[in-house]
Amino acid sequence: MAGSKCTRLSGALVQQLLDTVDSILFDCDGVIWRGDQAIPGAPEVISLLKKHGKKVFFVTNNSTKTRKMYADKMARMGFGVTEHEVFGTAYCSAMYLKTVCKLEGKVYLVGSNALKQELEAVGIQQTGVGPDPISGVQVDWANVPLDPEVKAVVVGFDEHFTYMKLNRAMQYLTDPACLFVGTNTDTRLPLEEGKAVPGTGCLLRAVETAAQRQAQTVGKPNHFMFDCVASQFSLDRSRCLMVGDRLDTDIMLGSNCGLKTLLTLTGVSTVAEAEANQNSGCAERQCMVPDYYVESIADLLPALQG
Amino acid sequence: MAGSKCTRLSGALVQQLLDTVDSILFDCDGVIWRGDQAIPGAPEVISLLKKHGKKVFFVTNNSTKTRKMYADKMARMGFGVTEHEVFGTAYCSAMYLKTVCKLEGKVYLVGSNALKQELEAVGIQQTGVGPDPISGVQVDWANVPLDPEVKAVVVGFDEHFTYMKLNRAMQYLTDPACLFVGTNTDTRLPLEEGKAVPGTGCLLRAVETAAQRQAQTVGKPNHFMFDCVASQFSLDRSRCLMVGDRLDTDIMLGSNCGLKTLLTLTGVSTVAEAEANQNSGCAERQCMVPDYYVESIADLLPALQG
Repeated sequence: MAGSKCTRLSGALVQQLLDTVDSILFDCDGVIWRGDQAIPGAPEVISLLKKHGKKVFFVTNNSTKTRKMYADKMARMGFGVTEHEVFGTAYCSAMYLKTVCKLEGKVYLVGSNALKQELEAVGIQQTGVGPDPISGVQVDWANVPLDPEVKAVVVGFDEHFTYMKLNRAMQYLTDPACLFVGTNTDTRLPLEEGKAVPGTGCLLRAVETAAQRQAQTVGKPNHFMFDCVASQFSLDRSRCLMVGDRLDTDIMLGSNCGLKTLLTLTGVSTVAEAEANQNSGCAERQCMVPDYYVESIADLLPALQG
Repeated sequence: MAGSKCTRLSGALVQQLLDTVDSILFDCDGVIWRGDQAIPGAPEVISLLKKHGKKVFFVTNNSTKTRKMYADKMARMGFGVTEHEVFGTAYCSAMYLKTVCKLEGKVYLVGSNALKQELEAVGIQQTGVGPDPISGVQVDWANVPLDPEVKAVVVGFDEHFTYMKLNRAMQYLTDPACLFVGTNTDTRLPLEEGKAVPGTGCLLRAVETAAQRQAQTVGKPNHFMFDCVASQFSLDRSRCLMVGDRLDTDIMLGSNCGLKTLLTLTGVSTVAEAEANQNSGCAERQCMVPDYYVESIADLLPALQG
């Protein structure tokens, strides 16, 4: 194996790398699909990796789908994946509250129905999902009734985000004992043709500013996302590969957890950005340099078929 | 005059200070009123200052009222003030766009009806005021129709803030030529009994995070707020006093503009905080030390009545 980082992965090097790993964690959007289309060759790559005895997992910061919804989406695109292989931030946030925080109480949830379902699946009740329009005047907002059973505020992606939700979250967080968890800090959700819409990071920043404190975030690059997979499947991190399209989330997660890392160029980040990080002389940016890169994960196909 | 800062203003010192100033700028909430109640003695102080030939002005970061609405509110509380003496961020933002940016085009406005009225009063058309609920899916949000005449996004206090407004603002700001102005960065609106609701700073932070750029903010402590008063009334800054209850906005504004500064303790900040800034050895925090403090601006009454 080459000692230098940011090496193009091709030819015999693919097989050499695959020989050193038992488990491969894939980011989803920009890596195995884009929008509603599988990356060409991606279903075959996943299928062949499994046939070669590799464990595969899917780790996504998106909090708008349950594990089941992801597995169904992937089935429609030709992937053979079970929901137990999928780790989205909706599920991971529920696990974080349950296993790390040992939450006893309800959640005030700024987030999606999927997040609600994942919370309820681990026995955590929530309030807050859905529209919450404004009414009354400032003094009414400040005295909005609070549910005394709420012991945590969780902020995920929420298309129904309103000033009133921001206000309710702030009122709960005025109690220093109230936990504060964010699913992830991605500032934009990239779509096709260079388009994007605001991501969870924008909503979380608004709530953090109002609450005058920072949330604990579950998503990549926080190590909890990997811990969640590793603890359930007894992974040996020295034999894990993290594959992603973003340096600041996917590759950083891999670096933070001591995994091998592979950047694919079908999504957000570029080799030029990775090389700029490598040459920056900044320790934090060095964590955003992948060991390897490929144009597409389809570049793994020849070695797997050979 | 004493050379040391953060001096309690009382006795003969009040008259000595008043002799050195021609113009006095007052913050409003926490200084001359709280909620809907005048600070006891405040109307008399304003009236007597005018009788003694002082010019008085009112500078507030709140963007939810027009100058006229402020003058009317103050009349109801017993203050004799004309709208030309009132400088709120709704009016100042309109002036900023008109005189500094020389905006030719419409504004996409995340803000109040009052902000809309102040923009229209200087001939700037806007779009965006009022509720803007979500509909459709991500790809619809990314392709939301944009008004080609919009050349600036303005973010003020907006109780109708929604994810869709955040999205629209972001889509406009994707054009690097689109101006980006915030009324102020106050993170909370303090109310009575230690209560508060989220302030404009929370909404602005969400839009800045989505847009991946910073707004130019008009409100205190930005010097534009003082420039706006000074240019209209030909003020000599060496003979101006800024009176406020917040170190990070009011006193900082005064320091930034070379004004004398007076902290009143009827609002947010405390003498202990001012002294901590003074003893910090940090240049930025030194700008948040007032020259003087009083318990209430009513402490000026004896000198004015004498």
